[in-house]
Amino acid sequence: MKWSQTLIPTLREDPAEAEIISQRLLLRAGFMRRLGAGIYSYLPLGVRVLHRIIAIVRQEMNASGASEILLPALLPIGCLTPTGRAAEWGEELFTLADRQGRRHALSLAGDEAAIELLAGHVVSYRQLPLLLYQIRSSFRDELRPRLGLLGTRESITQEAFSFHLAPDGPGGLDEAHDRVARAYGRIVDRCGLDCMTVEAPSGAGVEAPSHELICLTPGGEDIIYQADKGDYAANVAACAIGPRQHSFDGPPTGALERVHTPGCASIEDVCAFFRQELDSALRPQNMLKTLLYLARSGPDKEAPKHALVMAVVRGDHDVNETKLLRAVRQVSASIGRVELATEEMLEEWDDRFPVGFIGPHFARSFPFEAVLVDPDAAQGDWFWVTGANEVDHHVRHFNWKRDLLDPVPADAAGPVIVADIRHACDGDPAPGDDGGVLRAARGIRLGELSRLGPSRAEAMGFHVLDEHQQQQGVVMGRFALQIGRIMAAAVEMHHDEDGIVWPAAIAPCDVLITPIKYEGPMREVADDLERRLGEAGFEVLLDDRAERPGPKFKDGDLIGIPIRLTVGPKGLAEESVEFYRRDHSLGRGELVRREEVVARCRAILPAPAPP
Amino acid sequence: MKWSQTLIPTLREDPAEAEIISQRLLLRAGFMRRLGAGIYSYLPLGVRVLHRIIAIVRQEMNASGASEILLPALLPIGCLTPTGRAAEWGEELFTLADRQGRRHALSLAGDEAAIELLAGHVVSYRQLPLLLYQIRSSFRDELRPRLGLLGTRESITQEAFSFHLAPDGPGGLDEAHDRVARAYGRIVDRCGLDCMTVEAPSGAGVEAPSHELICLTPGGEDIIYQADKGDYAANVAACAIGPRQHSFDGPPTGALERVHTPGCASIEDVCAFFRQELDSALRPQNMLKTLLYLARSGPDKEAPKHALVMAVVRGDHDVNETKLLRAVRQVSASIGRVELATEEMLEEWDDRFPVGFIGPHFARSFPFEAVLVDPDAAQGDWFWVTGANEVDHHVRHFNWKRDLLDPVPADAAGPVIVADIRHACDGDPAPGDDGGVLRAARGIRLGELSRLGPSRAEAMGFHVLDEHQQQQGVVMGRFALQIGRIMAAAVEMHHDEDGIVWPAAIAPCDVLITPIKYEGPMREVADDLERRLGEAGFEVLLDDRAERPGPKFKDGDLIGIPIRLTVGPKGLAEESVEFYRRDHSLGRGELVRREEVVARCRAILPAPAPP
Repeated sequence: MKWSQTLIPTLREDPAEAEIISQRLLLRAGFMRRLGAGIYSYLPLGVRVLHRIIAIVRQEMNASGASEILLPALLPIGCLTPTGRAAEWGEELFTLADRQGRRHALSLAGDEAAIELLAGHVVSYRQLPLLLYQIRSSFRDELRPRLGLLGTRESITQEAFSFHLAPDGPGGLDEAHDRVARAYGRIVDRCGLDCMTVEAPSGAGVEAPSHELICLTPGGEDIIYQADKGDYAANVAACAIGPRQHSFDGPPTGALERVHTPGCASIEDVCAFFRQELDSALRPQNMLKTLLYLARSGPDKEAPKHALVMAVVRGDHDVNETKLLRAVRQVSASIGRVELATEEMLEEWDDRFPVGFIGPHFARSFPFEAVLVDPDAAQGDWFWVTGANEVDHHVRHFNWKRDLLDPVPADAAGPVIVADIRHACDGDPAPGDDGGVLRAARGIRLGELSRLGPSRAEAMGFHVLDEHQQQQGVVMGRFALQIGRIMAAAVEMHHDEDGIVWPAAIAPCDVLITPIKYEGPMREVADDLERRLGEAGFEVLLDDRAERPGPKFKDGDLIGIPIRLTVGPKGLAEESVEFYRRDHSLGRGELVRREEVVARCRAILPAPAPP
Repeated sequence: MKWSQTLIPTLREDPAEAEIISQRLLLRAGFMRRLGAGIYSYLPLGVRVLHRIIAIVRQEMNASGASEILLPALLPIGCLTPTGRAAEWGEELFTLADRQGRRHALSLAGDEAAIELLAGHVVSYRQLPLLLYQIRSSFRDELRPRLGLLGTRESITQEAFSFHLAPDGPGGLDEAHDRVARAYGRIVDRCGLDCMTVEAPSGAGVEAPSHELICLTPGGEDIIYQADKGDYAANVAACAIGPRQHSFDGPPTGALERVHTPGCASIEDVCAFFRQELDSALRPQNMLKTLLYLARSGPDKEAPKHALVMAVVRGDHDVNETKLLRAVRQVSASIGRVELATEEMLEEWDDRFPVGFIGPHFARSFPFEAVLVDPDAAQGDWFWVTGANEVDHHVRHFNWKRDLLDPVPADAAGPVIVADIRHACDGDPAPGDDGGVLRAARGIRLGELSRLGPSRAEAMGFHVLDEHQQQQGVVMGRFALQIGRIMAAAVEMHHDEDGIVWPAAIAPCDVLITPIKYEGPMREVADDLERRLGEAGFEVLLDDRAERPGPKFKDGDLIGIPIRLTVGPKGLAEESVEFYRRDHSLGRGELVRREEVVARCRAILPAPAPP
């Protein structure tokens, strides 16, 4: 490939739109361009990287016994309704009408289309297990697309679907989950990425334990927690916190005192007010944050409203809705969704709520389905400030026993339950008894490994006959790997101040040939090297531009091809070229005799991909 | 690949939805499934065929110096407005709004996105010419999707775009057009298809000569005409008809006679009425069909209405709107579009039109922009029946001179012009003077090679500076190849009563191994052959199902893999297997020693694709 005949529009300046390193470098080095919000075009070098990643994905998936299919991007909406997913995705799903007015969706995930493919054709237990995958664009109407390839609305995605009679045992979902996890591990490893598998949130048809594949890098948008002992790791949305001491017992720190706190609705406001007006060193960890949640009787946004639930966490903590839902379902299994109750929802429910000033003792006079208290908030001997259940007022010296639990009024709330319902924080105890603590890190979510249970296939009417000719449900696994994010993660992890340093396996080309001038004997040598390396199976880019050497070297460093061969007057006489490695492992380069170049490249680069 | 571990849901019966051979066989053999109108999922065998076709496309495009890019499917609508294409495509373009209400389109063609990619980055004539291509789904809201892969709404398409300073000369569009035409020729040739290049209609930004790549097969939906002498060939929409004698002179065949023809609006009605009521052997070729067209002052549907045009053809002929537009533009160059005037349009224009009963002499009293007469209708000495310009009436003995042209009334129509404005028919004279005639054939349109001229890049504000630092427009070529249609065409051309007979280069696998029973020594031999063929670079499918041999052979013939190796008790003792070719060139097969199998396959099959 000649540089002048392809399109590599490198930029001198950092593009204004770039927020993270991968976005900045992929734009500057001419790998991609933005066409709209979250919509990118890939240029020739970008496409080459994508193809190399995709080739690795195919090899590893095929090696693990999966068969490739291709489902449509355009899905008749009726395909998504039986499973309730159109409602679950809501505004994230792109929908459109055809000219006859029939509604369609752009595929955000292929589960339903894959099930339709099987239903009616896979009819016997003997046709299972089955592991299928596809590689295609998926579409998500992101509210605020950002961070380049980490927040796209059209994303090249590998999705795999597995079908089983049972979650475990031979041919069960566990086996496929492990097999795909190993394949994904090999894929990201070959792409030069250090990744970890963490626990993912379950809910809405996804069962535990589901996992995510995370590449740890400061540019990532996902927060994960790792235990400093053992190997527990989880996405913030799923991260459990280890055992914490708690008790509602304990003497009050003083008489319950009502304080007028005009206009102080937030934790920060109240602390500032106490500091300024009352000369009190009140800190957020001495406040109780009391939030009301609307519980619905199904997993989607439109499901009927069922009940109100109170959640209490310490002022410096945040409620984790995944955990809250799990805790609520312990009380009432029919609840499928919880969402923070807005002022409008509360007004519609009852007009008594002093929104923004509610304290736990409000549950004395209102029948909540349950009151969930995080262990750190369930401390009886602590000095607590909380809402006074009256607009513009708080109380201090709140005491759980005295002010809520003892004596229990007859018309009071449902059970008061202590449960882990908050987001983990750096330094929290890790689950287990080994005394480890959780440490926060940022990462890029490259993959998802989800267990779908029997409900999804069930909803689509997909069954098989077992060996006794009885209809039996099908358990599914759903796996996804984001190809564009792998590309971005590779740049986040492999770059320096001069540009990208591609891992050899996914570099756009193997070798860059840079003649100082593309004319006369230098041109002959460059052409000859290009031909010989091409015959040896390497992908070569020849910088044939009529530019000065400086900009050519700069562009070469920016685009990050692993090996650069400089053809200059210096080596010509000795039949040599300057052999330079982009990762600087040969410093500024060394002279290598021309006939040794192919062998040197072979020693460094991975073998060309098999056909 | 083991049959039992993948998904090959062959059907015993022909699916009801199938209209043509390729659709029937690809469904029956388990290569694809319909998910919605014009929307298909590809199963593992189908994906393998697609991949092999795509690999050939990539090889040939790269070999011709093109660089691969990837443009988005989701295009902000603003991208399509400067060129007027959103309006031009009208209802064929899928459009949708994102959650902020911003309109987007699903890519029907990537021209505009490709131009946006270049604009601002390609700024100098030295960066041209450039040849880019992409392979991705394109979307078209077909009114009536049918014929399987010939009428899909989501179609895997290769599109190429070339950019030049000039239409001809070194680096000009002609050169790229030839280069891509040769690449397309090699691609379809390697895919086992006989194709021809025919002239394509121009208009709406597409300039002549543009071409189409047609695979001749009775299942095709395109009509093309070929001259029986010379090499002229064209799509029906573009097909010119050779010179025909014509003259308005000639004596009337009788006095103009008004005939009451109640309710006879069509040519067939009138002929039937004459036959029954008047005992006349009136034939359609003795009638003049007089149609009114609305001419607009721009190429799109919403352009302002400009004038009415009358078109007259013989009763057995049909107006070709592409040719009519070209003829009309000779009279008035500002006309960009003609469309048959509906009754509503005519009423809106003037309330005098006796719709369905208009004869050419209506032009005596109405100022049409022009009256276009096909040479076969422009015969002065012919017996003509035509509309009487009065509802429910026709006239006979119409004579051009007497009844329209002589004397010319002062307030009469625009010029009366004889021009080739009708669709060709089988047996029409071919263009040129060699006495050849046109012959009709059906075919599948696999590719398009269009010249776009400078207007498209111009509309997007894309210019380059020439060597004198002057802004200069960019001429574009746009090329497309339909991957799904290549797959369908291969089946239309290569099948027999038992199923598909894939051309080896695009077969889903190279070799099918069919053990009579997959157990004991037969299993060992089958596994050993699979391993050895795999190591030699061949793709192998092993039919490990616990089925009787009959259904296995039947399924094998249906899916059409070029070579079948039958491992049965017969050959076991002699260390042999039955070597059978799907194209029956070895009859019912012959015994081949196991160690010779790889060499035999090598001799028959194309070399495995290079990496």
